[in-house]
Amino acid sequence: MSTMNTQLKYGMVGGGPGAFVGPVHRHAIRLDDSATLVAGCFSSDPAKNKVASAELHIGDDRTYADYAEMAAAESRRSDGIDFVVVVTPNHLHFPICEAFLLAGIHVVCDKPLALTKEECVRLMALSKEKNLLFMVTYTYTGNVTVREARELIAAGRIGRIRMVAAEYPQSWLASPDQDGGKQGLWRRDPAQSGRVNALGDIGTHIENLVSYVTQLEIRRLLAKMDVLVPGRVLDDNDMVLLEYTNGASGMYWCSQVAFGQINGLRLRVFGDKGSLFWSQENSEELILNTDTGRTEILRRGGDRISPAAARFQRTPAGHAEGWLEAMANLYVAYTETLRDVKSGNPIPTTPNFPTAADGVAGLSFVEACLESQANGSVWVDIAT
Amino acid sequence: MSTMNTQLKYGMVGGGPGAFVGPVHRHAIRLDDSATLVAGCFSSDPAKNKVASAELHIGDDRTYADYAEMAAAESRRSDGIDFVVVVTPNHLHFPICEAFLLAGIHVVCDKPLALTKEECVRLMALSKEKNLLFMVTYTYTGNVTVREARELIAAGRIGRIRMVAAEYPQSWLASPDQDGGKQGLWRRDPAQSGRVNALGDIGTHIENLVSYVTQLEIRRLLAKMDVLVPGRVLDDNDMVLLEYTNGASGMYWCSQVAFGQINGLRLRVFGDKGSLFWSQENSEELILNTDTGRTEILRRGGDRISPAAARFQRTPAGHAEGWLEAMANLYVAYTETLRDVKSGNPIPTTPNFPTAADGVAGLSFVEACLESQANGSVWVDIAT
Amino acid sequence: MSTMNTQLKYGMVGGGPGAFVGPVHRHAIRLDDSATLVAGCFSSDPAKNKVASAELHIGDDRTYADYAEMAAAESRRSDGIDFVVVVTPNHLHFPICEAFLLAGIHVVCDKPLALTKEECVRLMALSKEKNLLFMVTYTYTGNVTVREARELIAAGRIGRIRMVAAEYPQSWLASPDQDGGKQGLWRRDPAQSGRVNALGDIGTHIENLVSYVTQLEIRRLLAKMDVLVPGRVLDDNDMVLLEYTNGASGMYWCSQVAFGQINGLRLRVFGDKGSLFWSQENSEELILNTDTGRTEILRRGGDRISPAAARFQRTPAGHAEGWLEAMANLYVAYTETLRDVKSGNPIPTTPNFPTAADGVAGLSFVEACLESQANGSVWVDIAT
Amino acid sequence: MSTMNTQLKYGMVGGGPGAFVGPVHRHAIRLDDSATLVAGCFSSDPAKNKVASAELHIGDDRTYADYAEMAAAESRRSDGIDFVVVVTPNHLHFPICEAFLLAGIHVVCDKPLALTKEECVRLMALSKEKNLLFMVTYTYTGNVTVREARELIAAGRIGRIRMVAAEYPQSWLASPDQDGGKQGLWRRDPAQSGRVNALGDIGTHIENLVSYVTQLEIRRLLAKMDVLVPGRVLDDNDMVLLEYTNGASGMYWCSQVAFGQINGLRLRVFGDKGSLFWSQENSEELILNTDTGRTEILRRGGDRISPAAARFQRTPAGHAEGWLEAMANLYVAYTETLRDVKSGNPIPTTPNFPTAADGVAGLSFVEACLESQANGSVWVDIAT
Repeated sequence: MSTMNTQLKYGMVGGGPGAFVGPVHRHAIRLDDSATLVAGCFSSDPAKNKVASAELHIGDDRTYADYAEMAAAESRRSDGIDFVVVVTPNHLHFPICEAFLLAGIHVVCDKPLALTKEECVRLMALSKEKNLLFMVTYTYTGNVTVREARELIAAGRIGRIRMVAAEYPQSWLASPDQDGGKQGLWRRDPAQSGRVNALGDIGTHIENLVSYVTQLEIRRLLAKMDVLVPGRVLDDNDMVLLEYTNGASGMYWCSQVAFGQINGLRLRVFGDKGSLFWSQENSEELILNTDTGRTEILRRGGDRISPAAARFQRTPAGHAEGWLEAMANLYVAYTETLRDVKSGNPIPTTPNFPTAADGVAGLSFVEACLESQANGSVWVDIAT
Repeated sequence: MSTMNTQLKYGMVGGGPGAFVGPVHRHAIRLDDSATLVAGCFSSDPAKNKVASAELHIGDDRTYADYAEMAAAESRRSDGIDFVVVVTPNHLHFPICEAFLLAGIHVVCDKPLALTKEECVRLMALSKEKNLLFMVTYTYTGNVTVREARELIAAGRIGRIRMVAAEYPQSWLASPDQDGGKQGLWRRDPAQSGRVNALGDIGTHIENLVSYVTQLEIRRLLAKMDVLVPGRVLDDNDMVLLEYTNGASGMYWCSQVAFGQINGLRLRVFGDKGSLFWSQENSEELILNTDTGRTEILRRGGDRISPAAARFQRTPAGHAEGWLEAMANLYVAYTETLRDVKSGNPIPTTPNFPTAADGVAGLSFVEACLESQANGSVWVDIAT
Repeated sequence: MSTMNTQLKYGMVGGGPGAFVGPVHRHAIRLDDSATLVAGCFSSDPAKNKVASAELHIGDDRTYADYAEMAAAESRRSDGIDFVVVVTPNHLHFPICEAFLLAGIHVVCDKPLALTKEECVRLMALSKEKNLLFMVTYTYTGNVTVREARELIAAGRIGRIRMVAAEYPQSWLASPDQDGGKQGLWRRDPAQSGRVNALGDIGTHIENLVSYVTQLEIRRLLAKMDVLVPGRVLDDNDMVLLEYTNGASGMYWCSQVAFGQINGLRLRVFGDKGSLFWSQENSEELILNTDTGRTEILRRGGDRISPAAARFQRTPAGHAEGWLEAMANLYVAYTETLRDVKSGNPIPTTPNFPTAADGVAGLSFVEACLESQANGSVWVDIAT
Repeated sequence: MSTMNTQLKYGMVGGGPGAFVGPVHRHAIRLDDSATLVAGCFSSDPAKNKVASAELHIGDDRTYADYAEMAAAESRRSDGIDFVVVVTPNHLHFPICEAFLLAGIHVVCDKPLALTKEECVRLMALSKEKNLLFMVTYTYTGNVTVREARELIAAGRIGRIRMVAAEYPQSWLASPDQDGGKQGLWRRDPAQSGRVNALGDIGTHIENLVSYVTQLEIRRLLAKMDVLVPGRVLDDNDMVLLEYTNGASGMYWCSQVAFGQINGLRLRVFGDKGSLFWSQENSEELILNTDTGRTEILRRGGDRISPAAARFQRTPAGHAEGWLEAMANLYVAYTETLRDVKSGNPIPTTPNFPTAADGVAGLSFVEACLESQANGSVWVDIAT
């Protein structure tokens, strides 16, 4: 990790008591001292907001009851936050991100970026217009072995891609009586989650992971979206077949009701010279098959990892880095770039972290699936 | 394995020098001394036929140049074969099986049973009419852990089934220069394989395995059938989405061009109380998840396997039984039943081995996929 | 598998109803039609002997009440057995083998070969004197991946060996109430098993496996032999440290009381250029590490297996061969050689199956462990 | 993680540019905001010391050229450090720890605690005398699944322990040309490492892990210590047999020259009712065998983990916590206790982190091994 001269300051919207992903972002930022938390609007419930800010050593003057007020106040301060981290339920992503962008503040937002592709496009355009750095936290692209997979494929190690099989089964909503806690509730509520549940929450991770690793573009897709647990409204199991613009085939599956599958994001990419396998639950390794019968295990931390991926690791092979480290890597990349930008450099055209464009692609994928499902699993073209 | 009083005699059609599956059947039958090979028509090439019969200690009088001649001659002998094993390329299954059934000889035939559903129905009807015992060798249903999976699901251990994810990727035809030897050639030749390659060869194994283990019936399906290696004519990669009559969803994938996947038949069945995972390449184990967070490994040969499955094993846990043993188990079941039938008992309505009805189901599945593919991956109902 | 012109005939001593390993040998011999069973003395209990011979289609004239009678009678017949398979409890191995050798009949005997090194030496000498082919069935040396491991090491792929870690934990006698059935009883009875239980039964498998794969010779060893289940007399858990003549170190562990370990024979060999890992419970694979950080999986049945090992396989990669196949391979090697010898060729000096010399090495190992244990785990030199 | 009212301040000795474990401690402390780094003596090289302090935002006034000066200066400040973290090469642990204890400052020290048991005893006594909180960072006891293993064994889930098999093979010094960088150099230098290399570095991890999880005490042991790479002076491969005071047996192996083994700390504990397996490289899981044939997988983050272990986790199952998180957990436990102590509570008699007593046990183990080795691998009693 490189030297840091000036410490960046950030604020957070969401992430109060009981939240799942807010603390994750804070741990991830702290791990490498990427930035310091100085302001927040942690909960719409004033009492909870206060509890959070006390725990996090945030003064009353920078604990805000309202995100709009926070955006306004912080943009006025000479020592205002450098960027905001948005970790609320999905339906609030759009107005909050928009408010901070309009206030001239750089933004990091959890995925999916918004409820519609249109909203995502608006945020992407706005960040470009305002010349602000925007990250959408697709965690797994921060993983060292995922980055290495991208490098290997770009280097032609498995040849031209023919087929992608990716899946993300989980079990946390498998029982009717599993409400998944606070986030389970909002995720299954159309008012807060939008028109999709599993597809938005984890299906978009598949879409982004495949896109990042393979650099393939989807030409068209068809979907079967299921509600497998009686009484639910939104999808909890989704299957998608795809065709990419290079002619390759794809098959995605996500599920929240798959007993025995914990957090099973898995990717297999098959080319005409070999294949690559990656599994989130075993992400210290990458399996490379370059011939019939030759299977090689590449290990994070080992000598054979390319510099572009290796620079994001802290520990040698066999000393596991986990999920928080993957998230932390996104913040390392984002804050490195932000420091560059603040020192006068232009925003890079292809940053090494997921951006609003990835957010757009995610909702584009979701909307195509919804359209396919609504019409009996027919093929739907993806506009490019 | 139980006592055997009279030794059954069998003949073989196909399985000459260079063949893949013929020797497998012979090994499997020998393993438990299920029957004795006494006649054969091993190759349409007279020289190869002779080589095979010499190696197998078959006299000239029972080495036939022609299957029709063999059926006729063996049916006339007082010491004629009790059953025939048909292990030729697919397009010959139908006429050969028909000839032996018409000659009053019991039949075992490799899968897929024939090139069309119509042919399969004809063979099923004919075997019923002639009161002959017919087995189609879907090898994996002979596997002890597969049988145990069926028992566990029938006993309600994972509840009502919601979702099935099954796949069968292989790599043996992944390179353009992999012709797969003798069988690779005929499998990719429409004249010998019919209208499908991968789907008929391994897709039908998925269909049969799911059907056997879950006892679900397919209501409808849609398919995307690919030719991924340039220059080939028949499918080498197939993806199928399904809906079962109980409302559950299914997703099947088979491929012959998946580098790094050797013989990856895998089954995951998700119910509303748990799930079961089975993998052909690790078939000494069965993974049972009966609660969020509780994963149990059941081992073939262990104390916890039910008697219905355990009776088909030879060795204790940790002393692996493999693929030949799975095939051998089919012959144990078939020959036990055949001895019963020969001693005057009726043919059981639900034998413990795959029958012509499974053959019909296989081609029914194949034809629905072809129809779906021809019409742009639309849903196709399966007639029941 | 090669062509066979004349069918060999064998007899069996032991392997009656309830026996464990006798049926295994019969399955293994049948699998490849290596020989035909024509005579036997299956049990000292006349009723059981009769049951076995009836099941196995052996006529009364060749069902013997007594092994001595059998040796005498078969040696007199013009169509007498070509070899005998001895699968009795350990204490009977010596007199039976001796009797058949004296009668001029080739012998296959289960391991450990006898109760003392002296007995083993006598059998080795006698077989040489009588010019008879002697095999001791150390099953795992029949395994294709074990043979491949030997080839790779002999070819220098991992360099000069520095360290060997090998183990064989099992659980079948872990509970005080697990008597292990018929064989559990005799194995724990000094009268039938000799002075050791676990060390003789499975410790010798470790010793033989290491010796076969690495071709290292033991210079000295020290042992701690435990009786971990109260009330037992013979060892059920043994730990051995070793020094080989090339200066490498070794560590062996065997146990019959290790809950959760089924049949866990595992071998790791570390050289100065790489290492090789093999596990009996996953014996379709061999793990080769040739550099820090590069791990390669070699698969039985795959293109990369050397001809010397590959010739012993029946099925392609992904179509598992198991434990019976490993045993069967020993019989393929033995009967090929026996046919050669019967056709006038001399007995090879280094046959490709384990011989009486391996039997001697096994008891030499056992006796050194006993001596070390008796003297407080001191180092004991192995006479060469 | 609980609320924190006052932020603790710490200083570091060691951990300058090129160091391995210093940054690890800093990451680990930051992850949970356990304390703030405010002072340091990072290198004996003034230039390197300066680079480190600049990177870490430490002012010149609190960047010390010398640890003795630092101990003196910090103890005089009203805002002095609450504790020091000692992460130098091993031979400096003792004088540095002693200096800070004498200055009345709480201490955290990397393992092994010192070069001799005598030094460790002195530090333990001094910390008691001064009423200071002392932690020795045996990282793996911070692991959630290791803590759960201890809970399960204490609760009797596997019964009375009979046998322990533990190992810690690595490969980072396997090649003669692998010097292992800066730490490889000092670890292999007797002047800095003391009389042992591998045994002190990783052998003590085995000893501590077994002791923590099983609560067994060693009665006696024997050791074979090897130098397997020519030209080295200190051990790089060690094998130890043990007897515990409850009569159970143990077998430990550590190695730095084991190609293909990355950081393979593994523990298997066998009781009279079951067994537990843990592997550092797969530490999200714990394998519990409670009956012959029943194997269960327990997952960190899952519902089935006991509260005593679960309180140290940040993320749900399937979202891996790794090695840094294990280290961070030690600091969570230490700083929680330190806040308690600073608020007037007594030092707990059995803290939930490793202490100087563990440091003593580590050197006691090392010295017994050295004595055994010096006398030809004889048994050496461990004084209690």
